[in-house]
This record gives sequence, structure tokens and C-alpha cells, in this order.
Amino acid sequence: MAKSKPKFSPRHLIGIEHLSQDDICAILDQADKYAAMGHQLKAQNPAFNRLIAANIFMEPSTRTRMSFEIAAERLGIKPLNFEAATSSLKKGESTLDTILTIDAMKPDVMIIRQSQRGLLDEISDAVSCPLVNAGDGTGEHPTQALLDALTIRQKKGTLKGKKVVIIGDIIHSRVARSNFLLLTKMGADVFAFGSLELMPDTLPDGVKRATSMAQALDQADAVMMLRMQLERMESRPTLDGYFASFGLSREKLARAKPDVLVLHPGPINRGVEISPEVADDPDHSVILDQVTNGVAVRMAVLDILTRPARK
Amino acid sequence: MAKSKPKFSPRHLIGIEHLSQDDICAILDQADKYAAMGHQLKAQNPAFNRLIAANIFMEPSTRTRMSFEIAAERLGIKPLNFEAATSSLKKGESTLDTILTIDAMKPDVMIIRQSQRGLLDEISDAVSCPLVNAGDGTGEHPTQALLDALTIRQKKGTLKGKKVVIIGDIIHSRVARSNFLLLTKMGADVFAFGSLELMPDTLPDGVKRATSMAQALDQADAVMMLRMQLERMESRPTLDGYFASFGLSREKLARAKPDVLVLHPGPINRGVEISPEVADDPDHSVILDQVTNGVAVRMAVLDILTRPARK
Amino acid sequence: MAKSKPKFSPRHLIGIEHLSQDDICAILDQADKYAAMGHQLKAQNPAFNRLIAANIFMEPSTRTRMSFEIAAERLGIKPLNFEAATSSLKKGESTLDTILTIDAMKPDVMIIRQSQRGLLDEISDAVSCPLVNAGDGTGEHPTQALLDALTIRQKKGTLKGKKVVIIGDIIHSRVARSNFLLLTKMGADVFAFGSLELMPDTLPDGVKRATSMAQALDQADAVMMLRMQLERMESRPTLDGYFASFGLSREKLARAKPDVLVLHPGPINRGVEISPEVADDPDHSVILDQVTNGVAVRMAVLDILTRPARK
Repeated sequence: MAKSKPKFSPRHLIGIEHLSQDDICAILDQADKYAAMGHQLKAQNPAFNRLIAANIFMEPSTRTRMSFEIAAERLGIKPLNFEAATSSLKKGESTLDTILTIDAMKPDVMIIRQSQRGLLDEISDAVSCPLVNAGDGTGEHPTQALLDALTIRQKKGTLKGKKVVIIGDIIHSRVARSNFLLLTKMGADVFAFGSLELMPDTLPDGVKRATSMAQALDQADAVMMLRMQLERMESRPTLDGYFASFGLSREKLARAKPDVLVLHPGPINRGVEISPEVADDPDHSVILDQVTNGVAVRMAVLDILTRPARK
Repeated sequence: MAKSKPKFSPRHLIGIEHLSQDDICAILDQADKYAAMGHQLKAQNPAFNRLIAANIFMEPSTRTRMSFEIAAERLGIKPLNFEAATSSLKKGESTLDTILTIDAMKPDVMIIRQSQRGLLDEISDAVSCPLVNAGDGTGEHPTQALLDALTIRQKKGTLKGKKVVIIGDIIHSRVARSNFLLLTKMGADVFAFGSLELMPDTLPDGVKRATSMAQALDQADAVMMLRMQLERMESRPTLDGYFASFGLSREKLARAKPDVLVLHPGPINRGVEISPEVADDPDHSVILDQVTNGVAVRMAVLDILTRPARK
Repeated sequence: MAKSKPKFSPRHLIGIEHLSQDDICAILDQADKYAAMGHQLKAQNPAFNRLIAANIFMEPSTRTRMSFEIAAERLGIKPLNFEAATSSLKKGESTLDTILTIDAMKPDVMIIRQSQRGLLDEISDAVSCPLVNAGDGTGEHPTQALLDALTIRQKKGTLKGKKVVIIGDIIHSRVARSNFLLLTKMGADVFAFGSLELMPDTLPDGVKRATSMAQALDQADAVMMLRMQLERMESRPTLDGYFASFGLSREKLARAKPDVLVLHPGPINRGVEISPEVADDPDHSVILDQVTNGVAVRMAVLDILTRPARK
């Protein structure tokens, strides 16, 4: 390649909001290399073997925690888990003190999921190692947006000019928020749609509000369906009729481009926001590709952020 | 040895029902080699170091999960744990989708405990790596039967013609089921006994129903006592009198052969199904040998199933 | 150094009560070496790579479990976790049988936190590997006392003759107990203070009972504040007025020496036993140094106890 290699400058990965287009490209390009290696442990760089990643999950998680663990192991970094169930939080310690305590054990990177939006920004100068935000309440989930972008870019060649629509529980979704920020930075044509009570009053700059499912899906290049985050809702809504109004069926998907991609960050609630036929359709669904790419993106992020520690 | 080496052909280890006598011998012979090495990490084959085992336990477990973890570590494979407590299952995802999601992260082998009998057979063609069944509800628990067989074979030289009796909560026991299948395939003389409500209506071919504890124990070479699986019973039975009728005491054991082995898959409920004297009797009890052999058997299984991945 | 190297003779680390002054110095000297290495993985001794540490935590823990895990990983030992939440304990097994079962899987060292004071002494002859007590109910927590001693010795040069005061919930604290034993063995001048219902009727030999907070703090070289162990109390006390009477404020601390150290084993309850200003005061607080030193002390303990296994 004649073009110059994109550089990544931030010390932490706390949110897409802090990244430039170059930062995003630097991660995606590195992730493409890891994806191309298949799922082999890298092993060729012994400097990784000196490193410890503290995997700090204070909210339940399957795929994200395991994806980071597998990413770390494939690089040669040792992942160690801290989970809320066995934590000091029960003994009255603040989340902040818990994180600073783990930081004092001198891990080489901390991967943190917790519920206080903005907390990681507050502590970013106080910690002695890079932070990766693995979800902060309704804030951001940057590695999810990066793996979504990697998946679309792999299949469509670019994000620029592509119509990407995000449908469902927008208001509670840090995945939506990180995707809005990333996709608009990369020049995609971004739409949001959902039931009135699941849409925020304002959307990030450049994100358009669709007025109907039909308008949202019309000529779309990629459709991202979101799970109802029942655990973040004060009263549990009835799901009767949700699929008819806001779920993705094969019939509705016919309005999109013939080669439309269907994405979902998982876990899927089949028959609620997406029909099983669409979720499993090999011509459109890239849901499992997203999972596979998640490991490659997280390898890239851990690689890039630990470069100073490997010197 | 002049005799030909037994070959193992299946891709997965889902149940003893899928194994031939040769498959069983291949695992036991390899396990004997690992047992003979003591508890040293193998380390001599760096191909293992590229591999990741996903240890997916959706039901509580101590010994089985740790035994697989230690087996993986001793080979050099990295074990990563997924536990139901922190899982997507809470968010409405199906067990099947959880497994396919973890499969998409490309582990090299998946070790799965979950409650749906037969589920692993259903998904065995869909996954990209070998599966090891670590217990599927009331279905099978093949590595437990293999470690029991290894323990009897080490002490008695062979399983063929040996009288082996399994006593207790047969109906809820996947351990009993896998043992019945394995022991009959290997030519043992197999008996079952338990209280009426804990015995199934039908037993696998070749397994005899004892009509009394005395008949069951008479001239036995090995006695396997089972725990009451209270967590699988709809109403909790009274345990008063259980030990007198169905528990194993030193007096009752005197009916068996003088060199009879006493096995128990654990965890033990002392004084319920077995007296402490019998459980701790160094002349008969091989309960801790079973635990030690469990690691060797699981090393053999992980070794054999990951051979294609190591090429 | 011309002076002879202190030797460590016990097979296990169950309590400070079993250690001589030489044993304590052997651990602290080795810990100083690891602390001086910074937080690099050692890697230079491949004999560690053959070893497995079973990390058995039957009571909730963050910092202690992770500290042992990081210590093991930095040495090259593989740590495997057993947690009560997913345990056989639910199935009726005794703590003793659980430990003996894990021992039969042949780990190279077992690190155990459980609630029965004295249990590890009982089983110490029965197990096949070294035991490290990571807290046994209200008994001992020896590695905590060792890391506290390391921290004071680093800052003050010696423990001998230093006035060290321990304030708070003395009666429920294994940390206090291990510290009393260690500090008196090393020649410190040790005081205890707390509210009447949180002080035991008797204190270990050589520990003095302060009659007021002022007397306790007067000319102190080091002050260790303890958390209220609400989870060990039968009725939850009111915390109103606790800070005024027994909490550490900047004003009260002025009675101590100008270079007094403030320690706390964590987790901290800010505003209950210690003011945020004192906890975060860089001139006095060594709370995060304690955490960092915890890893070094545990590396030293695991190194020393596994020497026989590495031969």
C-alpha cells in the first residue's frame, strides 16, 4: 500500500467520541490482519507473554467478556477475571475504589464493564494502565461499534455512503450510540427507528430519524436490529405486537437492497425483534460473522493499546 | 505391545452410546499414559499451546469443571470459562444460540454442561469444533464413565467379566446411564439397585435389576454408590431410613468380594448413601483415585479430539 | 550482604502463629526483590510453568483472589479458580471433602479462603500440596499481615520499636489477629483500640489496649484502620456517630508523628472508619502501596512454598 498507515493516538479506548477517522482506520486495519490469520494464537511476539489484562465485569456479560478473553489469549496476554458476584462491591466499596485497587496490582490493561456512564473518563488520568470501555451503562460500547464497522467494511468494501439503519430500543442502547458516532465519522448515511418510547429526544449529529419501518429499510445497505433491554426498563412493556410493528421479517427486509446485510449485537430474542428466518438467513445475516470479528477487533485494540507496555 | 493400537473415530464425545469398544480403549490407553506421567504438565508438544478450550458450564459444578480446566492446563491448552451466572441466558437467549455464539469465537474445543438431554447431538453438525459433553441433564456424562472404567481397569486389570453394581438414585443419574452403556460394551456383568421410586422402568440392554441390596452386593468386584440428586426431584424425599435401606455400610459391604472396590462420583453425602468408614476405607474406597483419574481421562479426551486442530 | 539469609521452614502458610522471625524475614526479603522488579512477569525460571495453583475461595473476595492470581501469573504458575457460587457445597458436600477432592486433582499449591477457623491446621497433614490460608473466618489472614509489614518496613526501615496502632472492628478481624502476631514477633510496639463491643475480651500477648483514640494515635508511626465487618455481625449496628468516635479524620491524625503512615486492608467505607481526605492523602496514606505490595508478598509466598515442587 502506498497510502500512509493510519496512526492511533489515544492512550485509552473509552468511547468512539474520542476517536478520529484515522484512529478508527488504524484499529480496523489491524483487525483485518488478525481476521485474516484465522483463529490461530499469534505466539510470534513473546513481548505479549509478559502482559496481564484485568477483565473487570460488574454487569452480566457472555459474549463480550469471553471475546476479550479469547482475544487476549490469542495474543498471548493473560486475562484475569473480576466479576461483581464475588466482589468488594458487596462490602460497600465504590466502583471507583474497586478499579483503583485493581489498578494498584499493576495489570497492563484494564477492560471494564460497569453501569456509570462517564466514570472511565473521570478516572482516565488517575490509572496507571490503558482502559478499554466494555460498556458503561447507557454510554458507549466502542468495541461493538468497531466490530460492526469491520463486518460491514469486509462485505461492502467501505462505510462511506452506505445506508445503515439501526432499529429498536435506541434509547437504552450504548451499542446504538457508539455506532451512530462511528458510522457518521466514517461517512455512512445513518438512520434510526424505533417505537416512540424507545427513541431518545435527540440523536447525535448526522443521524436521521426514520418515520416508518418502511422508510428506514428502503434501499438500506445494512440493517442493525437491537434487543429490547428489558433489564434497563422501569416497567416491563408488553411484547404483544412488538414484532408486527418493529420486528424484522423477511417481507419487510425485501424493501432493502437485494444484498442487504442484517446485523444484531446479540443476544437475540428470536421472534421479538427479529424472525428466526432472517436471523439464520445465510444470504443476509452476518450475526455470527460479527461475533468472529469481535475477537479480531479486540485483538487489535489490545495490541495497539499495549504497545507502550511492550517496549 | 504387539497388538494394534485402538483408533478413535468420532469427531465429538457426546455420549458413550456413540463409542465402539475400540474408541473406549483408545481413550483409556491414552489416559493410562497420562496417569503414569504423574501430575506433570506435558509441555513437550507446543502444538497444544495454540489451542483454546471453552469450558461452558450452565449448571453448577466443582469437580468436573476444575478437572477439565486442570486437564487442559496440563496439556498446555488454555481453558476459558463461561458460567450461567454471568450469562446471556438471563437476557432471553436460547442455550443453542449461546453455544453457537461461543463457537463463532472459534475455540478449538467446547466442553459443555447444560440441562437439555440430546441438545449436543442436534448441534453437532453445526459447530466448527469438537464438543465434549460434560453432562446433559439426565442424559449422559461420558467422561465420568470413562474415569470410572479407568479406575476399575487399573485395579482389576480388565472390566470383562467383572461384577459391577450401581446403587442409588438411578433414575436421575446420567452417571449411571453412561456407566451402564460403557460397562456392558466392555463385557462387565452389570447390576442396578435402588428404591422403587429411584429406579427407571427400563434399563439399558444387558443391565440386570437386583431385587435386594444383598443380591446386588453379593460377590461384587466393584460397587458404585450414587448421590441422591435432590436438586432434580420435584419433592424433597425424607432421608430418614434411607441409609438403613440403601446406604453402604461396612457390614453390607462384607457380602462383596474381599477385594471389592467402592466408587462414588461425588460429591458425597456422608451418612446418607455411604458411611464415612466405607468412604474413607483405604482397602476399598477408590473415590479419590477416581478424581485423580478424572484429570488423566480428560487429558486423553482433549488430546484425541484436538488432533485434527493440531495438524 | 554478609548476614546469613533467613530460611523458611514450614511446609504451609496457615498462620503467622506458626512462623518464626526468620520465616517472616525470609518472606519479606523475597517480596522486596519482587517489588523491586516492578510488575514484570518473571519468566526466567521455566520450572514455574509446570505448576498449577488452585485458588479456592468459598467467601466473597476481590482483592485477595485477584492478588493471588496476578502473583501466580507473574511467576508463571497457572491459577485456576474455584468459587463457592458454582460449587459442590450446594449439593451437600463438606468443605473438607471439597478441599480433599481438589487436592486429588494434584494442584501444586492450594490457596484457600473459607469460614471455619482452624480447619486448615486439621487437614494440613492429609493434603499432598502446600496450603496458603487466604482467610479462615475470624482466624488468620497471614498474607495480609505480611504485606502490611512489608509496607511499613519499606517506608520506616524496620518494624522494631515502631508504634503501630490498629483501630476499629478488632473482634471480627482476622487481619488484626495476624497483624498482632506478626508485629509483636518483629518487636513493634502494638496498640489496639475500638468501641467496646468491637474489642475482644483478651488480646494476644504484647498487644496493649488503648483507652482512647487520642492515646492510641499519640506519637504513632503507623495507624491501621479496619472496616466494620457488617457481614459478620448478628445485628447491624447504627453507623451514626461512628465516624465521630472511631473514624480517622485529619484532625485526629495530627496527634500521631508527622510522618505517620495510614494503612487500611480495604475495601474502604469512606466516611465510616476513615475520611476521604485521609484515605487519599499522598503524604500519609499507603493504602494503594499495600495493594501493590500484596502481589509481591504473594509472589514470595508462592515461590517459597513451591520450591520442593520445582525440584
